Formats: sequence, C-alpha cells, structure tokens
Amino acid sequence: MAAIEELAEEFARLPGIGRKTALRLTYHLLKRPPEEILRLARALEGVAERVKACSCCGNLTEADPCGYCSSPRRDRSVICVVEEASDIPAIERAGEFRGLYHVLGGRLSPLEGIGPDELNIASLLARLEGETEVREVILATNPSVEGEATALYIQKLVPGGIRVTRLARGLPVGGDLEYADGVTIAEALAGRREL
Amino acid sequence: MAAIEELAEEFARLPGIGRKTALRLTYHLLKRPPEEILRLARALEGVAERVKACSCCGNLTEADPCGYCSSPRRDRSVICVVEEASDIPAIERAGEFRGLYHVLGGRLSPLEGIGPDELNIASLLARLEGETEVREVILATNPSVEGEATALYIQKLVPGGIRVTRLARGLPVGGDLEYADGVTIAEALAGRREL
Repeated sequence: MAAIEELAEEFARLPGIGRKTALRLTYHLLKRPPEEILRLARALEGVAERVKACSCCGNLTEADPCGYCSSPRRDRSVICVVEEASDIPAIERAGEFRGLYHVLGGRLSPLEGIGPDELNIASLLARLEGETEVREVILATNPSVEGEATALYIQKLVPGGIRVTRLARGLPVGGDLEYADGVTIAEALAGRREL
Repeated sequence: MAAIEELAEEFARLPGIGRKTALRLTYHLLKRPPEEILRLARALEGVAERVKACSCCGNLTEADPCGYCSSPRRDRSVICVVEEASDIPAIERAGEFRGLYHVLGGRLSPLEGIGPDELNIASLLARLEGETEVREVILATNPSVEGEATALYIQKLVPGGIRVTRLARGLPVGGDLEYADGVTIAEALAGRREL
C-alpha cells in the first residue's frame, strides 16, 4: 500500500479518529519537515519499548517499581484503586492524594467476558495482606454500573481492619443543576453534608 | 522526559488534538500490543522518508513523476489546479475528473506573507507553455476569499487559447436551504441553470 494511505489507515485505528480526520492528520504531517514526523515515530517507539506495567501496582511506567511505589514521600497507609493507569494522572492533577495506587486494568463486565481473574484483584489482595501499614483502601472505580459492581466486589474481599471508602458522587464543580441527570441529583441529595 | 508524556506531547502538536485527547490516544496505544504501536511508528517513517512532491505537478507521491502525471489513461488536455495535495483525493472520490492536477501548495494570502512566489504558479505556467495539448485549466482553489483571489490571479496569467474555468458554487448536495448562508444562496441564484 502507498505510504500516505498506510499512515492514514493507522491513524484511523485510533479511537475517535475517523477516516477524514486520519487523512487530515496525515496531510498535516506531510507539510511539516520530516524530522517532525520522525520525532512522533521515535516517541511511539519509546512507549512501545520502554513502558511496562509496574509489578507492584500495575501503573504504566518506565521504572519498575513505578515512581509512586518507590517514592519515600508517598503515604503508604492508603491505596487508591483505579480502573486504568490513565486515571492516575487525573487524580494527581487534583493534588489532594498522597498515597499509593493500584490499577485494576479494567472493570468487571460479564457481558465482555471480564471477570475477577481478568483484573489485578489478586495482586491487590496480596498487597493488602503483605503490607501491614495499609489502613485504608479508596475504591476509585468509575461511577458507572460496572465501576460500582467492581467496587462492591472488591470491598467484600478486603481484609477486616482496613477501612474501605468510595469517591463521593454528586454534582460536578462548575456543573449546572438544571442540566444534571436525575441519578446524579439523587446521589448528591443522599450524600448531602451539614454546612 | 518520560516516554508517556513525550508521546502525549507529540500527539498534542497535531491539529485538532488537545492535551486531553493526546493523553487518551497515548493510553489507548499503551493498552495495545507493542507491535501495533510500532506499526504506526513505521507508517510515519514511511511517509517521512518516501513521500516527496512530484516534480511535475507538486502532488505528494512516492514515485516521481506521480501516478497521475505518468498515467497513460489520464486526459492530458485538462489540468485541475488545487491548493493542497490533500484536495486531490477529494476530487478523485467524486469520480468525474480524469485529467491532470497541479498543486499550488497554498493560496495567496498577503496577511500570512504568501505571495505568488511562495506558490507553485511558475511551474504551472511552464507546464502550460511547454505542453501543447492543454486545452483547459480548472481553477479548483477553495471557495474562500483567498481561494478566489488566487484563482483570479492565475486566470490572468494563463496563455490565450486555453479555457479557464472555476468550480461551480451553490448549495451543497444534501444541504439544507434553511441553514445555507446568504453568500452561498446568492451564488446559487447567480449560477442557476435551466431545467
């Protein structure tokens, strides 16, 4: 296949990029100097060759154990359990959490054939049993049906004596009550706090 | 810089891809097997190393002259002048044009400092003078102010005896009269045809 079509086809495999956008990206790059195209190629090789899952928490990283697991400055008494490694930067941006992470690698989804064995649940339980410092597990799976089910499933397996919490549900900051869906408003009411 | 951030930054340089989308693409690729990531890297290298401008028409191609210029099946009496090489596949998809192309590499835009010398206009005139078969030049620059100005500029330079045409302006097929802008409706009225 011709190089241009080949690149457009590879771009079109990415999520949210259709055939037209793929062609637009390809022709955009063709107007740039070759070094710029090769820089993107090098960056792709970089992640393909250097990024692996952390053997402790499952985070995607170049160092094993990852920066969070090996940092002496993180609070080792709290583990935040997330579905995907990409959830970690989102939590870090909030700047409120200083504990460790554990990446499940997905969520329970019987329809897609994803059961507990497909997720990093066994390694989480091993961490909880091995490390005596852990006092709290925050289940930060997504606020979706599957995310809830996954959180409930894990909650039952966490050894006694460890606090299990879940992120609060409610109105997103900057959101508009008028446009919030009923379930979110119901959750916000149920979780209302004393002023 | 870490490999993941580096790739996200490279993605974010692409048009229409913001920081969040760039991260989403990066983490999407990280969930795929490394071979898939490397296939995209190879495709990028392919275009960086093999794709050049056709020395005859300016089309982006791996062969020089390009497939259109060298094809014995194309009608050599018509040259369709376009702003960008990416306009050619769009015209080819219509399946109506069998002539040759000429890629200007942009449009006249004094504000951006793009004058006639920055475009492949001299090479177009050289083709028109060199090849005696050319009977028509279709100016298929974009229906924008700059595209119009570019078409008018070139029209004045085309040697006598060669027909100069411009793509019709009017309502896009499948479009909605109600939502068409006034200028388009004015053009559609001016260009109305006998049934």
